Amino acid sequence: MTGPVPRTVLITGCNRGIGLELVKQLLAKPNPPDLLFATCRSPGTPQCQELTNLAAKHPNLSVISLEATDPGSVAEAKKEVEKQLKGRGLNVLINNAGIMPESTLESVDEKDLLNVYTVNVVGPVLVTKAFLPLLKKAAQVNPQAPMNWTRAVLINMSTIGSSIAKVSENFSWMQVVSYRCSKAALNMLTCCQSLGYKKDSILCTAIHPGWVQTDLGGSEAPLSVEESVKGILKVLCNLTEKQNGILLDWEGNTIPW
Amino acid sequence: MTGPVPRTVLITGCNRGIGLELVKQLLAKPNPPDLLFATCRSPGTPQCQELTNLAAKHPNLSVISLEATDPGSVAEAKKEVEKQLKGRGLNVLINNAGIMPESTLESVDEKDLLNVYTVNVVGPVLVTKAFLPLLKKAAQVNPQAPMNWTRAVLINMSTIGSSIAKVSENFSWMQVVSYRCSKAALNMLTCCQSLGYKKDSILCTAIHPGWVQTDLGGSEAPLSVEESVKGILKVLCNLTEKQNGILLDWEGNTIPW
Repeated sequence: MTGPVPRTVLITGCNRGIGLELVKQLLAKPNPPDLLFATCRSPGTPQCQELTNLAAKHPNLSVISLEATDPGSVAEAKKEVEKQLKGRGLNVLINNAGIMPESTLESVDEKDLLNVYTVNVVGPVLVTKAFLPLLKKAAQVNPQAPMNWTRAVLINMSTIGSSIAKVSENFSWMQVVSYRCSKAALNMLTCCQSLGYKKDSILCTAIHPGWVQTDLGGSEAPLSVEESVKGILKVLCNLTEKQNGILLDWEGNTIPW
Repeated sequence: MTGPVPRTVLITGCNRGIGLELVKQLLAKPNPPDLLFATCRSPGTPQCQELTNLAAKHPNLSVISLEATDPGSVAEAKKEVEKQLKGRGLNVLINNAGIMPESTLESVDEKDLLNVYTVNVVGPVLVTKAFLPLLKKAAQVNPQAPMNWTRAVLINMSTIGSSIAKVSENFSWMQVVSYRCSKAALNMLTCCQSLGYKKDSILCTAIHPGWVQTDLGGSEAPLSVEESVKGILKVLCNLTEKQNGILLDWEGNTIPW
């Protein structure tokens, strides 16, 4: 990917997988963000070692403690980010943290449904509401600029498994009912946000990263995390108002709801 | 509506609105169900007076206590229904109970999201899992019969507000973000159920009842509850395998996801 890179970015769930790779590839740009906030639940623990190592080398990377489902933690994280931004806004917020436990029509129950919904939907709602003022601030810097990721963008990480129209294509080998339900809800949220935040010039898009070799996707997945993230960053770089409120895959193809 | 009526039916949330009207119109058929189970949270209370009165006149109506979000209550209800069925199966299960509190992008929070998801998604999951053996039993009576509502049908009450493809048409006047998210998830669930239960010959369809003059829809709604339910019953009577796993409105039109 070539092209402009946003100046300030926050990504949730960065200790591993796609979140970590997004951080790596953004830092490796010729003109990386001035401030890249990478959140994880427990900075400083062995689970976040790679992130800690990266932060030691890159002064523009700031590791932020965030438990997205805990309003108190979200408020603390917002305070810290705001402090470090020193009056600047946030160009890009990527709600990447999520879980995908196995869940069949037989096994799905109250605990499974509520747990997955809390992480995959409540978390993004709380984080977005908290950081919205900073996205708005970024969007206001240049009121004539087109809507794109160097201005203000909200990304919700979704999945092909969220597409109700495509369930029949992947039902047999994606036994993740609670995850599918939560991500269909997240798509709805994204669409509502795209309409509600349009007046604030914040672009809102859902992204399917592909079936990726991560802890979530498993080792037999066809796509490496590097390829997936390379594609995602290209898609983000090319976002315009036309992509507001839709679901795109890592290659930029629109996925039906 | 003319045409065959299923012999055994269970409908949740029957103390008012669409649930109550479904009960009334089914009882008024020339050949009403042999056993119509109408559930509500607190039978015998003033909120269920109409249902109590109906049951006094119609021996084929059985009012069942059911709190759909409470696994214990669901298990009790299933036991009672099974007892009254005396070895017969259940032809039709209608997950009708639901809530629609006002919820904007500004007001939506953890409590709102989880409360609405619990009633609108967890409830139908628990109820369907509990009554599934009875639906299967009904489906097995005539293994050669086409899939339709006199054999075995699962209906999840959805809404036009669940259609992500149509949010831009009604976003400004339907400020119900948590409800929309829950019903998009319910659509996903319906689609998964339609695929998972196909081997059991159980037809699964989501229904949008229209914007109806009920406690949920408000008094300015264009459609009376009588008209809506008349339409819904006609749609249910005409269900075939073609409508498995889709969202239909009360006039039988397919709504995109």
